[in-house]
Formats: sequence, C-alpha cells, structure tokens
Amino acid sequence: MIITFEQEKSIIRALLQHIGANEQEANVTAEVLAEGDLRGFASHGLLRFPYILRALKRGTIVPNAKVRVVRETPATALIDGGHGLGHPVALRAMQLAIEKAKKQGIGAVGVYNSNHFGIAGYYAELAVREGLVGMMTTTTDALVHPWGGVEPMLGTNALAVGIPNDPPILLDMAMSVAARGKLVKAMKEGKSIPENWAIDAEGNPTTDPKKALKGALSPFGGVKGYGLALVLEVLAGPLVGAAAGKEVVGTLEPIQGFSTKGDFMIAIDPAAFGSVEDFKKRVQGFVAQLKSSRRAPGVKEILLPGEPEFQTREKRLREGIPIADEVWSELEQIAKELGVVLKELRE
Amino acid sequence: MIITFEQEKSIIRALLQHIGANEQEANVTAEVLAEGDLRGFASHGLLRFPYILRALKRGTIVPNAKVRVVRETPATALIDGGHGLGHPVALRAMQLAIEKAKKQGIGAVGVYNSNHFGIAGYYAELAVREGLVGMMTTTTDALVHPWGGVEPMLGTNALAVGIPNDPPILLDMAMSVAARGKLVKAMKEGKSIPENWAIDAEGNPTTDPKKALKGALSPFGGVKGYGLALVLEVLAGPLVGAAAGKEVVGTLEPIQGFSTKGDFMIAIDPAAFGSVEDFKKRVQGFVAQLKSSRRAPGVKEILLPGEPEFQTREKRLREGIPIADEVWSELEQIAKELGVVLKELRE
Repeated sequence: MIITFEQEKSIIRALLQHIGANEQEANVTAEVLAEGDLRGFASHGLLRFPYILRALKRGTIVPNAKVRVVRETPATALIDGGHGLGHPVALRAMQLAIEKAKKQGIGAVGVYNSNHFGIAGYYAELAVREGLVGMMTTTTDALVHPWGGVEPMLGTNALAVGIPNDPPILLDMAMSVAARGKLVKAMKEGKSIPENWAIDAEGNPTTDPKKALKGALSPFGGVKGYGLALVLEVLAGPLVGAAAGKEVVGTLEPIQGFSTKGDFMIAIDPAAFGSVEDFKKRVQGFVAQLKSSRRAPGVKEILLPGEPEFQTREKRLREGIPIADEVWSELEQIAKELGVVLKELRE
Repeated sequence: MIITFEQEKSIIRALLQHIGANEQEANVTAEVLAEGDLRGFASHGLLRFPYILRALKRGTIVPNAKVRVVRETPATALIDGGHGLGHPVALRAMQLAIEKAKKQGIGAVGVYNSNHFGIAGYYAELAVREGLVGMMTTTTDALVHPWGGVEPMLGTNALAVGIPNDPPILLDMAMSVAARGKLVKAMKEGKSIPENWAIDAEGNPTTDPKKALKGALSPFGGVKGYGLALVLEVLAGPLVGAAAGKEVVGTLEPIQGFSTKGDFMIAIDPAAFGSVEDFKKRVQGFVAQLKSSRRAPGVKEILLPGEPEFQTREKRLREGIPIADEVWSELEQIAKELGVVLKELRE
C-alpha cells in the first residue's frame, strides 16, 4: 500500500476529529506522524496511530486537552499536558522554549502529563527553523537494562539535537542499540538478531528475539550508553515532575491509566554567544571538513546526522509512503469500529 | 611512588606560582588536577602537568590571564578565557552558569580562548553542590573518525552531567570507545588492543596499537556516538566562537600557538520545574530501583555513573595516589629546568 504525505495527514486528521480532538490537535498530530513515515521512522508513524485512537476512545488520552503552563521564569517553564495528545503538547513546549531563547539566549521547558509525541527530531527542527539550536529528550516505558542488571529499568529515551545548517544537522537517536520493534519483526519473520542487541531474562546475550523480548534491550555503546540513558531519564523524569524507571508507563499505549512520561527541551540562540554569521560559517566549515574526509572502503559519502532521513523524505514526497498491509488493516478495523470507512478518507 | 592528595596539590601550586600563575589560578588548577588523580583519571592528573608547565614557559598558556565576559544575557554568557589555564577559566564559567540558573532557572555559558581544564565532571559537580543539575562539554584535538571516514576529524569531546543525589550521579565520558592514552600504553607494553577501539590509516579495524595511532579512534556506540560527538563539537565549537574538527589544536599541549578549543556548560535549577523535595525523592526512588535490579551473573552491584570514581577517591584519600615513575621523573626534570627541587616540594 502506497499513500501520499497529504493522504496520510488527511486520514489521521479526519479520524482524530471524528473521535473528539480539536482541529489544532488533529493537524499537529497528523503532521508529526506523517513526517515520521516520510522520514522512514515507521514505528513513529501510522503504525502507532491505532494505539492513539484506542487510548482516545478509552479516555487515557484526553481530546481537547487543557494544556497549562504551571511554573515559569523568563528562561524556563513547566507544562502540564492535561493528558492530551503528545504531539501538540510537545509542539507548544518547544515553541515556548524558542520564544524564551529568543529573549534570554536559552529557553528550557519541561512537560508532564503528556503522551508519546512521535519523532523527537521534529521538535528539535522547529528550533532550527528559527535559527536556533534545539535539543529534546523524553522518557519511554522501561525497556533497557542498567549496566550489570538484567531487568528493563530505563527507557529508550530519545535524544534529538538540531543544528541550523542547510540541510539541518539533525541527530535523533534512542538509547538502545536497536528498537524493540526490530525484535518483534525478527521474531515474526523467524530470524535471529545480532548478539549485542539484547539480553535474555537471565542476563545472557541472546540472538533469539523471543528470548530477548522476555529480557531487556541493551544500551548502545555499553556502559556509556547506560549512563547517558540514565541522566536523560532524570531530565525528562524527576526534573519535570514525571516518573522514572519502571514507573514510566503508557508511552506505547496508555491502557490502565494515564501515561506517566515526561519531556525536557532546550532551545539556544547562537546570537547570545556571538555573531550568527560567524556561527554559520564555522558550522559550514566543519561540515565541509567532514564531507571531505577520506572514506573507508565501500563508503560513498560521509553522512551527517539526519541526512539519511532527509533523503528518504525527498524520495517519499515524490514516490509516496509505503504502508505495511497489516498497519492498514488494523487502521481499517479501528476506523470501522468508529463508524468511518477508511477508503473514503483516502480519496 | 605514592603521594597524598595534599602533597600533589602543593607540588602543583608551588610550580605554577613559580612560573608566574597567580594564587587563584594555581589553587584551582592544583585542585582539579589532583581530583583527577584521586578519582583514577590519571590522564587528567599529574601526567598532564608537564605539558601545562611547558606551555606556560613557552607562552602558549598565559599566566595571570585576563578572563572577560564578552557577551551576556540574564541566562547566558560568553567568556574569553584570555588563553589562561583552563581550570580557573572553566571554574569561573560554571560559577557564572550556576549564578544565572539560580535566578533564571537555567544558565548557559560558553568559553573560547581557553585550555584543557582537567576532568569535566569536576565542573558538573560544582553545580550539584549547589543543588543544581550541571552539564558541560568541551572540544579536543581531532582524534575520532566520522562514521564512514578514516581520518581523525572529531574530538573525544567529554560530556559530563551531574545530578544532585548522595553521592551525586556524575556521568563523565568521552566520545571515543577508549582514550588515546590506552593505545599509547598498549604500544609501550607490546600488547594488542580490542578490535572496536580504533581503525588504521586505511580505515580497517586494527588490534595493533601502533597502526591505530596512525589511524583514528572509533566513536563509542558506532554511528550514534559519531552523531553525539558531532553535535557536542558544534556546541563547544562554532556556537561559542571556537574551532571545530581538525582546526581544534592545542588541547593536549599548545605548541605552535594558542589552543583553539571551546567549552559549553549549562546549569539547571530543579526549583524552576517543581518542588525540590519532590525532585529529590523521585531521583532517590529511581536510584533505589536501579540498585535493586536483578543482576547479571558475576555482577556484585549495579553502579551509577560516577560511583566507581567516588570509590577510588575514598580509597586514595586514605591510601594515597599512585604516580607512575615516568610521570614523576618527567616532573622532576621540568622542575629542575625551572630551578626547583621537586623532592622539597613534596615535604
């Protein structure tokens, strides 16, 4: 199944509004999910939408959410997301961080009582479009084991950093070597996984995705990735009044109650630290150095963070977005339950 | 050779003042270098001191440096370090970030025209002692290859994050799998190195430290570590008016001219984002979860970032700091050139 960017957005918008989301919530959520698919982050695109619809139906994601700034300084703010759709809440938070950074040189905004917000890079890029550096992190349900431990106790805790450049430098990465979705895929396909991806329930490295799913994902880069995941969990957890470790729930799907996750984002104005022209030239010079590096055997081009995704984006804007049949079927099913014929939305 | 923490500090102080550093510069530099040794970061302790003395003698590190705040907002500042000793400059920068964070919730300070400042964790911990979250990063000479590239083009770019707790959570890590010093050590001892540490000049993984030293260090965690090293290099480089990539020089020893490195640090006040008591309890709860994790075979305790170093610190405060004979000899030699008898300083 191939759909266009516009089709994906209009399907998501229509279903969200049908279930009670307001226009702005529906627009932002549609935009971010479709951008996820456009860039090749399938797990953060339409695949995730049925979870969102079910949670809205169930009431564990609140449509028309009351999003409030509950604490504020000229450079910081804390936002209560009112258990609303994570995408518009995160958008509001980054917009506020940007506004503050433009006045104070830096702005930091924390979020609690929110939900999964799609691709973290989307929000870092909002800052980039305003000429700022954008950074953000967020917690997820515990999937990653601590170093030396065998239970999942840390989120995959995405970290996104955007740097103004053309195209932007856009780092967007999780703290696990591999996403949980890749283990599920390998299991369904009867394939084995690389030895460094995960451990089994006894703490031994395993190549069996079934055993790995009963164990825990391994942090990328060993003890260093563990340390990084841990401090990000504090920033997007305890610092902003959200949960940490095993107490983070509902980021894949809030089932029994509201999600307890949190977000933390920072925008930085290069103008506060020097001439913007000088900054841009220095970044360009650095990029030019990297691009001109001698390459390892078989490597065609040195890529910057975000570049592979921007390439996928261009291709899919032209050629459309491939949607897995099972994702489409699930969406058709849930649309039907809501009394909507999905096919008609596509047109 | 075993010396005490106090002995190490008094040796460093005396030699620095002998060569023209003022009292404050000498005290701070002695403190940070000796803390490096105390915590087991030998490469950031006395081992590095001869380089500093030679640079002071040569004039590429300036004693009695004029450190100026050249740009400032209520939440940010940019500091020109006047090519002074990196330690007191970084101290001043973090103190300023802390001061701003206490008023604005967050403070960010950039530094250029400075020098190597010892262990990054020292400065993150300054924020922690004030009840704040401290973060800092810095550039080094290019030692790490970009992903797909075979030339060293990125610094090892330390990242330190400190979280208030007892003991503090103190992440302090470099972007390479292993430090360059470990390759030099392996070469001297005729040993091989693990395959993931470095590549040779052709871009192939190598276990020969000699070949590795002609190639480049590998980023930790593969392409993710590359991405992280790259964005940190922009924060502590172009953002603060410092160099990036191959243009960063003089962090090991400024030989032909001044160092072109930069630093970037952030302090965050948890009080800006909620109740401090609540923050502390949430961090404690998270730590308790991690500590109680089921452990992998052979693991005695789940350690937090910084914990191994705090344990080494306690031990060395009691038992003294082991200093390699060659480090001591080199220091004796340079002290002699300066007309000082090192032995006498030790008493």
